[in-house]
Amino acid sequence: MDFINSDNNYEYLNKIKSPKDLEKIDNLEKLCAEIRHKILSIVSKNGGHLASNLGVTELTVALHKIFCDPEDRIIWDVSHQCYAHKMLTGRFSKINTIRQDNGISGFTNRKESEYDSFTEGHSSTSVSAALGIAYSKQIKKEPGYVIAVIGDGALSGGLAYEGINNVGRLKRNFILVINDNKMSISKNVGAVARYLNAARIRPSYMKAKDALEKILNKTFVGKKINNIIQKSKSAVKRVIYRDNVLSDMGFAYYGPVDGHNLDELQKAFITAKSLNRPVVVHVITEKGKGYKFAERKPKDYHCISAFDIATGEKFSKNMGKTFSQEFGHAICKLGESNPKICAITAAMAEGTCLQEFRSKFKNRFFDVGIAEEHAVTFAGGLSAGGMIPVFAVYSTFLQRAYDQILHDVALQELDMILAVDRAGFVGEDGETHQGIFDVPFLSTIPGTKIFSPSYIEELEPMLKICTESKGISVIRYPKGTEGYKPEKFKYTGNDFDFYGYKKANILVVSYGRIFSSVMAASERMASVGKNLCVLKMNVIKPLNKELVSEAMKFDKIIFFEESAKSGSVSEKFGDMLIENGFNGKYESVTAGDKFMSHASVKSQLKKSHLNTENIVRKLMFI
Amino acid sequence: MDFINSDNNYEYLNKIKSPKDLEKIDNLEKLCAEIRHKILSIVSKNGGHLASNLGVTELTVALHKIFCDPEDRIIWDVSHQCYAHKMLTGRFSKINTIRQDNGISGFTNRKESEYDSFTEGHSSTSVSAALGIAYSKQIKKEPGYVIAVIGDGALSGGLAYEGINNVGRLKRNFILVINDNKMSISKNVGAVARYLNAARIRPSYMKAKDALEKILNKTFVGKKINNIIQKSKSAVKRVIYRDNVLSDMGFAYYGPVDGHNLDELQKAFITAKSLNRPVVVHVITEKGKGYKFAERKPKDYHCISAFDIATGEKFSKNMGKTFSQEFGHAICKLGESNPKICAITAAMAEGTCLQEFRSKFKNRFFDVGIAEEHAVTFAGGLSAGGMIPVFAVYSTFLQRAYDQILHDVALQELDMILAVDRAGFVGEDGETHQGIFDVPFLSTIPGTKIFSPSYIEELEPMLKICTESKGISVIRYPKGTEGYKPEKFKYTGNDFDFYGYKKANILVVSYGRIFSSVMAASERMASVGKNLCVLKMNVIKPLNKELVSEAMKFDKIIFFEESAKSGSVSEKFGDMLIENGFNGKYESVTAGDKFMSHASVKSQLKKSHLNTENIVRKLMFI
Repeated sequence: MDFINSDNNYEYLNKIKSPKDLEKIDNLEKLCAEIRHKILSIVSKNGGHLASNLGVTELTVALHKIFCDPEDRIIWDVSHQCYAHKMLTGRFSKINTIRQDNGISGFTNRKESEYDSFTEGHSSTSVSAALGIAYSKQIKKEPGYVIAVIGDGALSGGLAYEGINNVGRLKRNFILVINDNKMSISKNVGAVARYLNAARIRPSYMKAKDALEKILNKTFVGKKINNIIQKSKSAVKRVIYRDNVLSDMGFAYYGPVDGHNLDELQKAFITAKSLNRPVVVHVITEKGKGYKFAERKPKDYHCISAFDIATGEKFSKNMGKTFSQEFGHAICKLGESNPKICAITAAMAEGTCLQEFRSKFKNRFFDVGIAEEHAVTFAGGLSAGGMIPVFAVYSTFLQRAYDQILHDVALQELDMILAVDRAGFVGEDGETHQGIFDVPFLSTIPGTKIFSPSYIEELEPMLKICTESKGISVIRYPKGTEGYKPEKFKYTGNDFDFYGYKKANILVVSYGRIFSSVMAASERMASVGKNLCVLKMNVIKPLNKELVSEAMKFDKIIFFEESAKSGSVSEKFGDMLIENGFNGKYESVTAGDKFMSHASVKSQLKKSHLNTENIVRKLMFI
Repeated sequence: MDFINSDNNYEYLNKIKSPKDLEKIDNLEKLCAEIRHKILSIVSKNGGHLASNLGVTELTVALHKIFCDPEDRIIWDVSHQCYAHKMLTGRFSKINTIRQDNGISGFTNRKESEYDSFTEGHSSTSVSAALGIAYSKQIKKEPGYVIAVIGDGALSGGLAYEGINNVGRLKRNFILVINDNKMSISKNVGAVARYLNAARIRPSYMKAKDALEKILNKTFVGKKINNIIQKSKSAVKRVIYRDNVLSDMGFAYYGPVDGHNLDELQKAFITAKSLNRPVVVHVITEKGKGYKFAERKPKDYHCISAFDIATGEKFSKNMGKTFSQEFGHAICKLGESNPKICAITAAMAEGTCLQEFRSKFKNRFFDVGIAEEHAVTFAGGLSAGGMIPVFAVYSTFLQRAYDQILHDVALQELDMILAVDRAGFVGEDGETHQGIFDVPFLSTIPGTKIFSPSYIEELEPMLKICTESKGISVIRYPKGTEGYKPEKFKYTGNDFDFYGYKKANILVVSYGRIFSSVMAASERMASVGKNLCVLKMNVIKPLNKELVSEAMKFDKIIFFEESAKSGSVSEKFGDMLIENGFNGKYESVTAGDKFMSHASVKSQLKKSHLNTENIVRKLMFI
């Protein structure tokens, strides 16, 4: 099939308006081929998660074939692997809009479809959520299975463990599908990976598998599931009650299953349904399956921007150096001269650009798995041991370690640097991934000092200050690269700097990425004769007292901020002004107290009135 | 030995100025008896953690005897069981001051002693912290063992699992002591409990590994170690490389060990030291050991106020009904009439007074273990399944579920009630347990509605509104009981109420517990002729617009708040005033941006200028 821009070519996919229509499909393999084709086609255009979606094609088809969604409920952990699920649940016609403004989300979303049983985006939540739904069914005596599908990477998160730890008491059928693709987002280090690996290779598992193969090869799937189960009670023999951790935890264990073999998968799920207890189905899949470039380098095709299908190469955007790249460069330079500096990532070495540090300073690099809580407490331990830990993490994921930052580092006055990447709007990943809460929640923690560079060249010197400071130093920077830079900009090392007309009666305050837009807007205002003073905050917490007294000299102050409002810098600024007796006018424009859907960053800034044009409009009428 | 008030009677304890002095002790059993005696003596006077401290007496002595603290580092998880540790590490002379104002802390605290390697208070952090310290030693090529001591209850926390999951890569000796007392704070449900139980009873664990035995019989570990190893070959028999989850995770497993047998314990630790890899030592202890009342009902003696040693009965304080008790009563009443209401606790059924709900509505009660993250995501699942989940939790522990509240409930507009107990200062438990951050961090979450009753009678009707509301409703109430109540107080159901002189030019704003003190102070002011208006906020988020416009009619506003400042209601109030053009004076008095040490609640309020006398003083000069 060519990659032409017509959905009419998808003979099977076009027949499926809901999962029930899978009954009509005579050839599931061909359906899978169409799904893969479509996934490649969209992701190569819109960007998105590729390798994981190609990996779960058969798994998704088999689940929807055997279970009865939405009476049965399927919870996809993280849910970046939900593209096939969306195509099979009434959204094939909208799949071209995925991750686009006003289009469907790249993650499962309760508001989008009744088939999306839980909104996912952060890792390791599926078991707990599924368990809640399962208990609801039990209390209400409703029928239906609840299935959580979780990757081996997500199993490294403590929340998944807490969930699994609570399944045992459940009497109803609860099915935990472990999608074992032998790799989480980064290389899967740690004990769980080793455990699954052991499960994969232990001969006893394979023997049992062979013995049952014979029996199960005879099975066929479809409406007569019950008949088949009746006829071959031995199907359950496939279930191995081994002395492993999962059986100790109250699960029956079934596996490993070839995740690209539709028959094997369907048999596994039929068996799982027939058992009257929680079951783990351990499925082995290959990330990127069916697309050779992704199979070879699945990490490079985890989340990717638009690319050429024929060559596998990204359409170069020539966007310039990103903040993340600069961080990767700067941390190596600092690590070279200071042997105490350690770098920590929670399975995001590539995303946070720590690859170079990893290869240069192997014994001071730690990929802890998808375990942000541990990352921070571990950093506390490193600091207690005399090291200087730098945890590079996306803003949205750092939310998970709030108590650890507060209780395990701040309270005991340990030192730690948080390199907060993807601060502010993040674009297409949407509402589960926005970095608009880090300023509010990090500001509630006593003693934190927060740096917010607007330009790439500020990152390294600010990071250097962080590594030389006591307590918790935060440096937060956005996804992508810098915006408009005024000619006379230079890094000063000050907590704040003034631009524009210091004697103006209006002060415009900002920091971080959108300082660019504020400067551009103020210059535009100047060109029409309205002179403003612009305050660029470099340190956004604590609020510099001199800064406040300087600000109080103005008649009107307006603060533009790319952050949720509640707990923001502009809120603290307003309170500080009034408590210091400011009598002028004060106003703030922020991202508000709401969640922001997927769209381009540009569009998200515009919706929040934080783009240059909106800022100009606001300044016109102030 | 009688329980007389003299420390001269402690012959052995008096000899110990540091752990090295254990060398001089000829009879460790007698030392243990003295420690137990002293623990009983202090806790019966000062209150504190009893059962756990009695349970780890021998374990603590054996650890300090075999390891060389602080070159070796011992991290006590939660650390409520650290009393014996403190007595053996130079603090016997101060032990009478434990949990008192200006006295030593009831938890380990880095600032207090070099022997306290990590400040603890929240559960399940020890493994991650210890691992950080162990890696620091590895990087710096420093000698020494690192030992984490963790209870079976704390193992139900995901953070402990994340830590354990990251130990495998470590090459140095890391010793994880599982203090298995067959009970966490509440009854230990869940898979981990079952797993440990299985480990306790499986005969195969008791079998030795022959090859290992041969190797270890030859090892020479210190002059005294050698003797012990020689004398009891059976010590090494306990090391079992079994096919269990811990060995899959890279640990050697040694156990189970009788935690009240000093010889067995010492042998276990000597063996653990001799292995060149991470080791788990599984120790079985009895909570409350040596004090019959605590042995029989360990839960009742977990954390206890002053009591009569002879009878085991608390000295009645006749303090009146507590907010927690009222919550327990109200949730049962609501649960009776609404079959959708579910109650969740993270191992705190007693502390949050959910015992009655547990026995009345067994199928709608969930004790998830020490797993606050899971508790919230699970609540999200229950809500997605149509139930009304109520999570009763201490303010300080809710910090752990910040992302789950934001991402798994708020973002997807699910319904949940957070019953936040121990909001505000908590007294003797100190800085790791203060409830002064919940208002700041919960306020950063879009859509939350927060109720803050000042009086017991407000709790039930407010809770009822919560259970009938959409989204996340929070009701937060303090430890203990209510304060001064003005005669004309009655519950109105309003978002806010005015007291005092509505036509005064000064408005005093407050909410929650300290409204009592504010009212008392304003009445005292009135008695000397200074009339004030008092605004009692019942809903503290979102800020009611009418409330703000009412407030703007006053010339001066002063806000008293029992919360950390950054992110507080008073901060938002100030910002709202200025953004709405208020031109009067505004001031706030809060708990500031700092941590508050252990002392009585009364003393903590006084230190924060939030007691009646300080409020009066402030109002005098406004």
